[in-house]
Amino acid sequence: MKALRVERKTLRVREVEKPTSGEEAVVRVHLSGICNTDIEIARGYAGFKGTLGHEFVGVVEESPGGAMVGQRVVGEINAGCGQCELCSAGDSRHCANRTVLGILGRDGAHAEYLRLPLANLIPVPDVIEDEHAVFTEPLAAACGILERVAIEKIMRVAVIGDGKLGLLCAQVIALSGAQVLLVGKHPEKLRIAERRGIETSTTREAIKRKREFDVVVEASGAASGFATALEMLRPRGSLVLKSTFAGADPATIDQVRLVVDEIAIVGSRCGRFQPALDLLKKGAIEIDSLISEEYSLDKGVHAMERAEKKGVMKVLLRP
Amino acid sequence: MKALRVERKTLRVREVEKPTSGEEAVVRVHLSGICNTDIEIARGYAGFKGTLGHEFVGVVEESPGGAMVGQRVVGEINAGCGQCELCSAGDSRHCANRTVLGILGRDGAHAEYLRLPLANLIPVPDVIEDEHAVFTEPLAAACGILERVAIEKIMRVAVIGDGKLGLLCAQVIALSGAQVLLVGKHPEKLRIAERRGIETSTTREAIKRKREFDVVVEASGAASGFATALEMLRPRGSLVLKSTFAGADPATIDQVRLVVDEIAIVGSRCGRFQPALDLLKKGAIEIDSLISEEYSLDKGVHAMERAEKKGVMKVLLRP
Repeated sequence: MKALRVERKTLRVREVEKPTSGEEAVVRVHLSGICNTDIEIARGYAGFKGTLGHEFVGVVEESPGGAMVGQRVVGEINAGCGQCELCSAGDSRHCANRTVLGILGRDGAHAEYLRLPLANLIPVPDVIEDEHAVFTEPLAAACGILERVAIEKIMRVAVIGDGKLGLLCAQVIALSGAQVLLVGKHPEKLRIAERRGIETSTTREAIKRKREFDVVVEASGAASGFATALEMLRPRGSLVLKSTFAGADPATIDQVRLVVDEIAIVGSRCGRFQPALDLLKKGAIEIDSLISEEYSLDKGVHAMERAEKKGVMKVLLRP
Repeated sequence: MKALRVERKTLRVREVEKPTSGEEAVVRVHLSGICNTDIEIARGYAGFKGTLGHEFVGVVEESPGGAMVGQRVVGEINAGCGQCELCSAGDSRHCANRTVLGILGRDGAHAEYLRLPLANLIPVPDVIEDEHAVFTEPLAAACGILERVAIEKIMRVAVIGDGKLGLLCAQVIALSGAQVLLVGKHPEKLRIAERRGIETSTTREAIKRKREFDVVVEASGAASGFATALEMLRPRGSLVLKSTFAGADPATIDQVRLVVDEIAIVGSRCGRFQPALDLLKKGAIEIDSLISEEYSLDKGVHAMERAEKKGVMKVLLRP
């Protein structure tokens, strides 16, 4: 089968052996999405070698005992060891010995087929089309913010970054009833949020609103976004870090500010899939405007180059 | 009256005018305590000029309308503007225009008399002796941790730093029923916690317990304490920052670790006084072992030098 792989620091589509079921399920991929993390990994982040990709929708083709065969699914990307304290507590997302689809020790979704434990797979309701279902993973990551900070209707929340992740975060938080401001640099991207009734602002204007926000979500991936977020945060506010700005200089903590203003910096990565599927089923999230281009898997290397370009939003791959 | 003042980067005890009541209360100081923050301020932190000191117990001598006159009191150190959104919400501790006793725009407690708004003063129950009541402010700061993170009985909590603040934090958290480990370098200080049934450890041993703790409180004031705290924290754990390590290089955030392990860094400064007074009234906190020396206010400069010395715990000043 074909797969988009990073090997010896080189990205290419090549033939590899189709995975076999064994103790896990084999999924035939309908569609996969290119995430900024894929681009970081191709540049060397996380030292991963193998098939890239962790956003997908597909159909179960083989599994132990035939369970779920024929079922259209999306899949939780972390596979825990099943033995440790965290796995026993149901949190395999943080298992120290986990593998992660297309990120850590496990071939990913930019391929004709992928392998995941049955327990990771979640059926997709028929009403959700493939082009929306493939957003389940990044939308779950946006929903994950609500697992990490309590967002109440009276709160003022700012989201820094008008990329795909920022637009998903802003929409999810707006649905919770809080007042949301999306801060970004691209008028055409900000307009996607505006059409959903979300207030938007340029960074230059936003930075004047010092100490105004209860929660600020940093989803720009830039160290400058972190600094802006801190400026906008009120005392006792929470700064949610969604991105890892790999390659940037590590941000320095102004500890005095953190302690004196009693600020919390809260890391947030993956989220549970079910809340994301529920939102997609209700059609509550604007997805179509987030899709820029679609390519066949053969053109995977070109697709990755396109996904890196400024202004390009989600690029999809169809095996 | 006499006051211990920092003026033109010089610390000295000198005669100043006794404060008059006006719209605030005048308190005759019985006893004041030297905090590490006083030492930082004398070195230039926060750019403060005036009378140092924010830990005290005393008696109200004058006030508008004579309210509370003769009452023994301790006092909340932050005085808000009373007008802004935060003050209106009852959080004058974070008012952007606040003054802070002996720290920001307001003369402090290492003096014969001090001035504070009546609303800041809290009566001290008779059963609490002055030597304990003077610990209300730092004990409230320790209790403040419980305002910032939910600590449950099943949790494992580590406190880094066996100074006064660390010992108060460890005791407060242990009273909540959680399993506490106090990490420090001084066997004689660690023994104070051990006598209260708290497990202790050297830093060298503690650092081997990687990813074991739900909450780690950094109360050492050293940048190395921050690094140790991160090592010990489990995924989704909370690192509570109690000290500002002024003068140290700013700690850099490992953003990848924060996001991937979904860690929260939570700043914590002051706390409410009433929970601290309640604990002191019950005799629930070992205070006597935390007092090293007491001097008359005349010897304030010498007392500050003593307070800086390694191994010296709380130094008290009696006007």
